[in-house]
Amino acid sequence: MNAAPAFKKIALIGFGLIGGSIARAARQQGLADAIVTTARSAKSRARVKELGIVDDVLETNAEAVKDADLVILCIPVGACGAVAQEIADHLKPGAIVSDVGSVKGAVVRDMAPHLPASAHFVPAHPVAGTENSGPDSGFAELFIDRWCILTPPDGTDPDAVERLRAFWAGLGARVEIMTPDHHDLVLAITSHLPHLIAYTIVGTADELEGVTQSEVLKFSAGGFRDFTRIAASDPIMWRDVFLTNKEAVLEMLGTFNEDLSKLTRAIRRGDGEALFEHFTRTRAIRRGIVEIGQDSAAPDFGRPHAQLGKKAE
Amino acid sequence: MNAAPAFKKIALIGFGLIGGSIARAARQQGLADAIVTTARSAKSRARVKELGIVDDVLETNAEAVKDADLVILCIPVGACGAVAQEIADHLKPGAIVSDVGSVKGAVVRDMAPHLPASAHFVPAHPVAGTENSGPDSGFAELFIDRWCILTPPDGTDPDAVERLRAFWAGLGARVEIMTPDHHDLVLAITSHLPHLIAYTIVGTADELEGVTQSEVLKFSAGGFRDFTRIAASDPIMWRDVFLTNKEAVLEMLGTFNEDLSKLTRAIRRGDGEALFEHFTRTRAIRRGIVEIGQDSAAPDFGRPHAQLGKKAE
Repeated sequence: MNAAPAFKKIALIGFGLIGGSIARAARQQGLADAIVTTARSAKSRARVKELGIVDDVLETNAEAVKDADLVILCIPVGACGAVAQEIADHLKPGAIVSDVGSVKGAVVRDMAPHLPASAHFVPAHPVAGTENSGPDSGFAELFIDRWCILTPPDGTDPDAVERLRAFWAGLGARVEIMTPDHHDLVLAITSHLPHLIAYTIVGTADELEGVTQSEVLKFSAGGFRDFTRIAASDPIMWRDVFLTNKEAVLEMLGTFNEDLSKLTRAIRRGDGEALFEHFTRTRAIRRGIVEIGQDSAAPDFGRPHAQLGKKAE
Repeated sequence: MNAAPAFKKIALIGFGLIGGSIARAARQQGLADAIVTTARSAKSRARVKELGIVDDVLETNAEAVKDADLVILCIPVGACGAVAQEIADHLKPGAIVSDVGSVKGAVVRDMAPHLPASAHFVPAHPVAGTENSGPDSGFAELFIDRWCILTPPDGTDPDAVERLRAFWAGLGARVEIMTPDHHDLVLAITSHLPHLIAYTIVGTADELEGVTQSEVLKFSAGGFRDFTRIAASDPIMWRDVFLTNKEAVLEMLGTFNEDLSKLTRAIRRGDGEALFEHFTRTRAIRRGIVEIGQDSAAPDFGRPHAQLGKKAE
């Protein structure tokens, strides 16, 4: 698409769902002359080599960032501070350093103090993902029409911000800029609280008296299975999210609990009017999400339904 | 498939997502000589006539059930008692009377007293659905590989139960038989509680200070949108579910609240180990659901992802 690639060398620290998807999309769109990566385990590094998507797979983060114009940490939020410390002395002057973490306040607090003044720090969060993880889970289309939020600290070089914006646009994303604190509040409700609730209810169903686990699995199509998908997300990533965005999550949780009490009271009192009014309002919100293209309009998420007379695969 | 159709005449009371799907599938599989239906509003009746799926669209329930071998109430649970009363005197002796309600204890209590001894009452609940409703929302494949639970009262004619079982199997469903009370407990956790939680969180997100509704919609791909799909389900149907399965729902809600308190405490204390342990356990449950064929194994529910360079539709 571009006459010359936007970056000569991109270094990805970590090659899971997000790192692997960035590599695939960036290569497909010709956004870099070279892409190198590291992965924490020897097994992952071997697998990434086999996949043949990147130009080099290195053992240490320090080696990987050498001469890179763009360094992206694609690792759990809790690991970002230590990696920033590790790579700081090896960064090329003028390099853009970014990440993909789901929490931004903590990432800025943990990383910024370690980075040299000669590097441009532009934290980022692509709001996209699936329940899968590991080197094989990524795909080039993951970011298309999803949002990527940049949270550059005050005083960041506008040119560096613009180059990263253009990079994410090249991966197919729509880009928005906001402060780290506002990001953390918005994501607390749109992502962190939903995950916490899903993790809770799936756990609840796992240890009931009177209903067996096999019954829970069998009859999950009644609604439960929609929760299990997000409760299957990477446990380390999500542990870190809740440890690092504690305040905003607890605040949203407080509001959620109040609202749940209200609906519980309506059920206890048999107040059908209050229930109907609430359920009608939430239906409109779904419509809004489909209208702005943030979800499939196909019923049941477009889940496959086999034809009659044939069995589903 | 069969040499002779299982039923000469089927009467469907109500032609929404479930009634419309039964009609389409039964016709496609040749399970009845004739299928007639009623719908509450003149507008719906006109639309069902246009669709041309059934043999006749009648104005009253009493007319519809005349000479029918199988009568299925495909209406909200709260309306079943009144309809049973309405049709009782018009049922053909030996007719099977069934329903598709998501709550079974209340349906048995509301319907059974009105039905004549000459009819066979076999309540049923197909555990399948989408967030859509209305005459156009049904499709013949809805029940394939989903479960249909029958809850015949003690002493029901085994032959009638077997004929209804075979009918649902013909629609593609797997059939299970249990008591109404056990059904209501199982569905409270696999369906009713998930819906209540989804309705709550979507409502919470709708009236936050500090985060606009437009931000909630934009960044919903982080997890929130999975909840909005089930919070878009038919409000009347779900009002009735919570009014009629109150005890079981409140019991499950109590357990859920205890579990949520535990996870909240782990977040507040920064107990990463407890969070990691919980999140690892819930991941395994997802795997179980995919393995037994109750959900798509495709990541992201197989949601469509446009190709790079092309825009998603």
